[in-house]
Amino acid sequence: MHPHPIRQIIEACDKAISAKDFDSLMEYYAEDAALVVKPGMIARGKDNIRKAFIAISDYFQDKLIVEQGEMQVIEGADNALVIMETVLRFPDGHGGMVETTRRATYVFRLESNNRWLCTVDNSYGTSLLDGDK
Amino acid sequence: MHPHPIRQIIEACDKAISAKDFDSLMEYYAEDAALVVKPGMIARGKDNIRKAFIAISDYFQDKLIVEQGEMQVIEGADNALVIMETVLRFPDGHGGMVETTRRATYVFRLESNNRWLCTVDNSYGTSLLDGDK
Repeated sequence: MHPHPIRQIIEACDKAISAKDFDSLMEYYAEDAALVVKPGMIARGKDNIRKAFIAISDYFQDKLIVEQGEMQVIEGADNALVIMETVLRFPDGHGGMVETTRRATYVFRLESNNRWLCTVDNSYGTSLLDGDK
Repeated sequence: MHPHPIRQIIEACDKAISAKDFDSLMEYYAEDAALVVKPGMIARGKDNIRKAFIAISDYFQDKLIVEQGEMQVIEGADNALVIMETVLRFPDGHGGMVETTRRATYVFRLESNNRWLCTVDNSYGTSLLDGDK
């Protein structure tokens, strides 16, 4: 089986983030998409999403490593809900590295030119419900 | 604050399921929506989704009670990702009731007539990733 085209898009996004190539990254987002930066904080629109990614990259001293694990894509009515295991590695501030696993949820929309664009990027998945407690 | 219109839609869907009013229920789904019936089994299109809901209702002997808990809606590019705590109560087959809590994920799309329609209904949330192991 060929991998779902959205898996390839997400891999391309991870490469673009690692390479700090935010122009390429933004090609995969819808104009008025939403990014959950952290629980309770949402960046809206490509300009703000781009700024958020730059801030995240700076925060992790360019040492954030993102790896994708198991993925399920559920397509319905030209939308796709993506459920994905994501492993993050980043500096712990004391010379070591921290590893954390999240289950992310993304929404994509199929455009008339047959391209998938991300409309909602929520790497926190359902753990958002823990956020404000 | 007013509740998000999608919360009212989900409440209306729960009432329609309890009342076995599947005509009303289907008004909230896009024509080619997808419903995760259980991990690995997806119903596609309104006809199949309707049949799946009837089968689920029969399976639980019309005694499935659905209650919604905390909800977060993230809107982006005329999509909405809904993360929602859902409490299910149903007969255990021995005269008692079972209660189980899920964290559901739903995708909605805003139509040109300003109505939200469900495109992907995944009541299993990110626990889908446990499904096939």
